[in-house]
Amino acid sequence: MSPAKRLSAPVAPGSTIGILGGGQLGRMLALAAARLGLKTHIYCDEDDAPAFDVCHARTFARYDDERSLAHFAIGCDAVTFEFENVPARTAAFVAERTPLNPGARALALTQDRLEEKNFVASLGLQTPAFHAVSSPEEARAAFAAINGPSVLKTRRFGYDGKGQAKTLSADDVVNAWTAFEDAPSILEAFIDFEFEASIIGARGQDGDFVAYDPPQNVHENHILRRSTVPSRLSAAQAAQARHIARRIADALEYAGVLAVELFVTKDGALLVNEIAPRVHNSGHWTIDACLVSQFEQHIRAVAGWPLGSPERHADAVMENIIGQEAADWHKLSESCGALHLYGKKELRAGRKMGHITRLGPKTSAH
Amino acid sequence: MSPAKRLSAPVAPGSTIGILGGGQLGRMLALAAARLGLKTHIYCDEDDAPAFDVCHARTFARYDDERSLAHFAIGCDAVTFEFENVPARTAAFVAERTPLNPGARALALTQDRLEEKNFVASLGLQTPAFHAVSSPEEARAAFAAINGPSVLKTRRFGYDGKGQAKTLSADDVVNAWTAFEDAPSILEAFIDFEFEASIIGARGQDGDFVAYDPPQNVHENHILRRSTVPSRLSAAQAAQARHIARRIADALEYAGVLAVELFVTKDGALLVNEIAPRVHNSGHWTIDACLVSQFEQHIRAVAGWPLGSPERHADAVMENIIGQEAADWHKLSESCGALHLYGKKELRAGRKMGHITRLGPKTSAH
Repeated sequence: MSPAKRLSAPVAPGSTIGILGGGQLGRMLALAAARLGLKTHIYCDEDDAPAFDVCHARTFARYDDERSLAHFAIGCDAVTFEFENVPARTAAFVAERTPLNPGARALALTQDRLEEKNFVASLGLQTPAFHAVSSPEEARAAFAAINGPSVLKTRRFGYDGKGQAKTLSADDVVNAWTAFEDAPSILEAFIDFEFEASIIGARGQDGDFVAYDPPQNVHENHILRRSTVPSRLSAAQAAQARHIARRIADALEYAGVLAVELFVTKDGALLVNEIAPRVHNSGHWTIDACLVSQFEQHIRAVAGWPLGSPERHADAVMENIIGQEAADWHKLSESCGALHLYGKKELRAGRKMGHITRLGPKTSAH
Repeated sequence: MSPAKRLSAPVAPGSTIGILGGGQLGRMLALAAARLGLKTHIYCDEDDAPAFDVCHARTFARYDDERSLAHFAIGCDAVTFEFENVPARTAAFVAERTPLNPGARALALTQDRLEEKNFVASLGLQTPAFHAVSSPEEARAAFAAINGPSVLKTRRFGYDGKGQAKTLSADDVVNAWTAFEDAPSILEAFIDFEFEASIIGARGQDGDFVAYDPPQNVHENHILRRSTVPSRLSAAQAAQARHIARRIADALEYAGVLAVELFVTKDGALLVNEIAPRVHNSGHWTIDACLVSQFEQHIRAVAGWPLGSPERHADAVMENIIGQEAADWHKLSESCGALHLYGKKELRAGRKMGHITRLGPKTSAH
């Protein structure tokens, strides 16, 4: 991708933003784009993608279908994606034809847990201790180095806890690695965290940076259950979280929203757990608690517009609606929160079906 | 339309709401429906309708095309409209096939200024003095009765000041009526109001009623320029405004959002100027200042869902972006307000292209 293409002129209202991926994040991006008078073209390899219901144009095709990709890219004024597992070749193919943000480097890095952790460490930011595991010997050496509770994760294609195993011995690590069919993996020290948080920042094509107040997150069965702002982070910790996001975004010459998942240790350190080069579930509360949501912010950055204010006007608790819980939609619709449903046909266990955000008076400045 | 059809079971997420009309109101209704996991089908007789960009299904056809209408109605689980000039036959045709709300009676009444005013007066609510004008003799008699500054309006198809003329003499009235090509008209006393306000209420299919805090409105060249909440109405006047909306909604056994435009006279009376059986420009601030916007509220009512809370969490000033003003979209995008653009292709003088809402801390409870 040429630098000239990335620093393109702002995309005018009426133009088309392409989105690779058609899940709920693509859907909420499309809704945010529509608010700004921008059309969207959704490209997805599933035919009942939630985002197909709210866009100007749709392509249902595989991510390696170059004919469909070319047609899509040429018809869009700017392209982005809603999931980090967009194949590198797909991203490169699109980026040759139209400005793609965030860029190929952010995608490549965040598709590989080892490269991501090495990159974060290279910026002087803290992470849990980690070691590459590509052989039984490395498995044993990695465990010996950590010498305690740890988590083996495949380097690629993990999400919502998939491709992860907790390990308490060198044998555990070897067995888990074998169970992952010898996939290149990473062993990370298990962090007995005080709580989890995340920081959602946005960087414009002009280098401007803003971040939302960091939410505190609770996971259940490896799936986000709840995000709460304000978090229990101190003002200094919140500032540190912003610094982490900005450092990463600047180093990547990033344009768009990115989320950094953090472990907050019992002694107050912030460890980078994971980077998501996209809008993030822990930022859904920004739709209802901020004038400019993470989705609009991302569209602004991708379109080359100035970023909006990330200020929140309320305290917020965002709760995911998962699997069978969505069957209670009628009861949920009576709730005094802001209800969001993603239009997914099938209620499957563990599937994110919607979320609900409850607001309260703003009690904290960070 | 059978009562059984109107009191239908709530429409489940994943169902399709049909919307007659594809302008910015249809677009914002479609966006609100999407938030609730509902699909939309837009039916419009213009091929570049703004709402076509954000819906699941589109029909571009005339409102008297019964084949297209039948296909549309049968494919929708509930139908509504975004403009009050839906032909009565179109509404009846659709209502025979699928639940249509608001109902045919609200449409018929609000399509005719004389019937509307008679209806309002029959409820014991105040309006400016008014008289039917269907002949030069009636024109003179009407002026003689009012005997002062007055406004001649065609009974049907007026909007944004079209089909209106200010009159200061009986001759003026006769001439204006002739200029309207003898169209059945109504002469109304000109109200030298203190200010204008409106009340936006919603009635559910179960008879539940809620209303938003009434905005104060400023028109320029007969087009809404600005809506501000809180208004200068006293708490008692705000309560009276709510009463007016509820009285009208109950009398019509209404389901959906309705807006009542009010003149506030110098001695503090509230006169009903006009009823809009739909979401209303003076309620656009509810998108950003309330948990449940007027658009979501309307969709909830049409879908047979419980109404949401109309509470606002902020003071708000909504300013329309009209005609050429939209050419400054880049400057507008830097504003610290919530920007909404409607995706209209052509910048035409007087055309509503978008709006911007600025929020401040909530200063009043009504």
